[in-house]
Amino acid sequence: MINAYAAKTVGGRLEPFTFDPGSLRDEEVEINVEYCGICHSDLSMVNNEWGFSQYPLVPGHEVVGTVGAIGDRVTTLKVGQRVGLGWFSHSCMHCEWCMSGNHNLCTTAEQTIIGRYGGFADKVRAHQEWAVALPEGMPPEKAGPLFCGGITVFNPIIQFDIRPTHRVGVIGIGGLGHMALRFLSAWGCDVTAFSTNPDKEAEARSLGANHFVNSRDSNALASVANSFDFIISTVNADLDWSIYINALRPKGRLHFVGVVPSAIAFHVFPMIAGQKSLSGSPLGSPSATVQMLDFANRHNIAPVVETFKFEEINEAIAHLAAGKARYRLVLQQGG
Amino acid sequence: MINAYAAKTVGGRLEPFTFDPGSLRDEEVEINVEYCGICHSDLSMVNNEWGFSQYPLVPGHEVVGTVGAIGDRVTTLKVGQRVGLGWFSHSCMHCEWCMSGNHNLCTTAEQTIIGRYGGFADKVRAHQEWAVALPEGMPPEKAGPLFCGGITVFNPIIQFDIRPTHRVGVIGIGGLGHMALRFLSAWGCDVTAFSTNPDKEAEARSLGANHFVNSRDSNALASVANSFDFIISTVNADLDWSIYINALRPKGRLHFVGVVPSAIAFHVFPMIAGQKSLSGSPLGSPSATVQMLDFANRHNIAPVVETFKFEEINEAIAHLAAGKARYRLVLQQGG
Repeated sequence: MINAYAAKTVGGRLEPFTFDPGSLRDEEVEINVEYCGICHSDLSMVNNEWGFSQYPLVPGHEVVGTVGAIGDRVTTLKVGQRVGLGWFSHSCMHCEWCMSGNHNLCTTAEQTIIGRYGGFADKVRAHQEWAVALPEGMPPEKAGPLFCGGITVFNPIIQFDIRPTHRVGVIGIGGLGHMALRFLSAWGCDVTAFSTNPDKEAEARSLGANHFVNSRDSNALASVANSFDFIISTVNADLDWSIYINALRPKGRLHFVGVVPSAIAFHVFPMIAGQKSLSGSPLGSPSATVQMLDFANRHNIAPVVETFKFEEINEAIAHLAAGKARYRLVLQQGG
Repeated sequence: MINAYAAKTVGGRLEPFTFDPGSLRDEEVEINVEYCGICHSDLSMVNNEWGFSQYPLVPGHEVVGTVGAIGDRVTTLKVGQRVGLGWFSHSCMHCEWCMSGNHNLCTTAEQTIIGRYGGFADKVRAHQEWAVALPEGMPPEKAGPLFCGGITVFNPIIQFDIRPTHRVGVIGIGGLGHMALRFLSAWGCDVTAFSTNPDKEAEARSLGANHFVNSRDSNALASVANSFDFIISTVNADLDWSIYINALRPKGRLHFVGVVPSAIAFHVFPMIAGQKSLSGSPLGSPSATVQMLDFANRHNIAPVVETFKFEEINEAIAHLAAGKARYRLVLQQGG
């Protein structure tokens, strides 16, 4: 039996929930959960914001723990090994996307908290390839958020060949954005933080930003026109995107990893004149996750976290929902 | 003196217009115009659709001719050599874009028919690097449109690394689209033509399309969901772009070379899930133009043209404005 926390209704408080996971599949591992980050998408799922939540709903997709059991055909992990698990927990392993290393684009990939139960639990299961080993020496108590928020902002850096000579911008200094600052700074880029909150300037700089732009200051925004090779938006809010398209240099890319509520409108003319791109990307593949973990470990990159006990799960969720998280919340097992 | 055809008022007929071009600049060549294509943007400029036309306006930016005179410091071309000239006629040669081979992105690049007089004339001038030599054996009477329409659709193929294994789509089978079909077919791609006109199917196939989709048939459009690595839009009309975003495979790109009237709206979610991109690009650099000319020459790619005499210039423009061009119009010097 697995002891979890579940929302039993739309927007409901999380309550203890026990279920029988059945027998372990051949290529699956069962992870004894030590830590699990809380991501904004856990809230979105609890609140059925995307319309496909099923209840009882066990959120949690930023898991760190140790392998407690392995299926009969597991060859890559051993019992006792420390691993992490993110948004995806299985993929078919045979389609063109899995076979080309793009398992995150597998159209039948299983998502950890959709149609199954996630990591707000004492145990959670995943395909052996999606449970990625932590590198030697990485502190487990902060690693959970790397498996969702971290890989979300790291993946486009490798997908779109961002180079250390690039000038880059990060919109939104929160759970995702603060990790983007760290990664892009360690990557060697010239990094600008965009935030509506001028109080975040000092911290943004300490996280690796070389420049800070108050995105409510139209003069400041106008002054960075034609500046960036790459801007990554981590926010869930509607902004005046034309300003950011204008802030791109020729060949620049405005990239979305945050789902914004409304459709984004753009005019073709400046896109053509400057050979500009708009794009989005999901979580990364296991291979990209391995690269991220190695890079983070070598550069001592970890999210800034606040830790709660699993028993404080509803307080933690309320803290996140109130926009108070600085910057990522992690639930910790045990007393 | 140069004898040209100019519109003297917004939307006016083209009339003979003679002007003194002054002395030839050191790095300029003067081209004796043999042929000049008529591009839809010549019409747009005559009609001041973009709001920055100046009159008298001499259109024409798909020039083929021979070098008639060279400036004192011209080293790359000789008198008598056959060259072509497109949308750009000068760039600074010193900025980071010029110095990295992206002269088409030079922010001070001079445009052949903006703030100066273009190729509907017996002579036209350009910087020696922007007057690109025709390859040996290329028929001059059809080459003009390669220098604007041709390079417009060829440039993204090299900029975005389109590969022969890619499945590609071309929206709009007209002046640009028919050349895109030829280039992409010769590039080795699996090519689909999208057109509102089912009567164009046979010709689209003869131009290199492997498949034809009637873009007014919603069932046909739905059947190509999740199909394309790259779709290039050559049209100047508003379409339901969400259908084409939906038609992209993961990592796919919907690319615009035609200026559409209205803003394009898209939702971020499918862009994120499928790691999709939207983009635009302008005309290519001289280096890209050289690559295009060599590729076109080796693969016998030429636009399908209808030829008019320069004296028939207003009839030719009326033919183009009526949407009757099949597919590209070329003015020919001499009687």
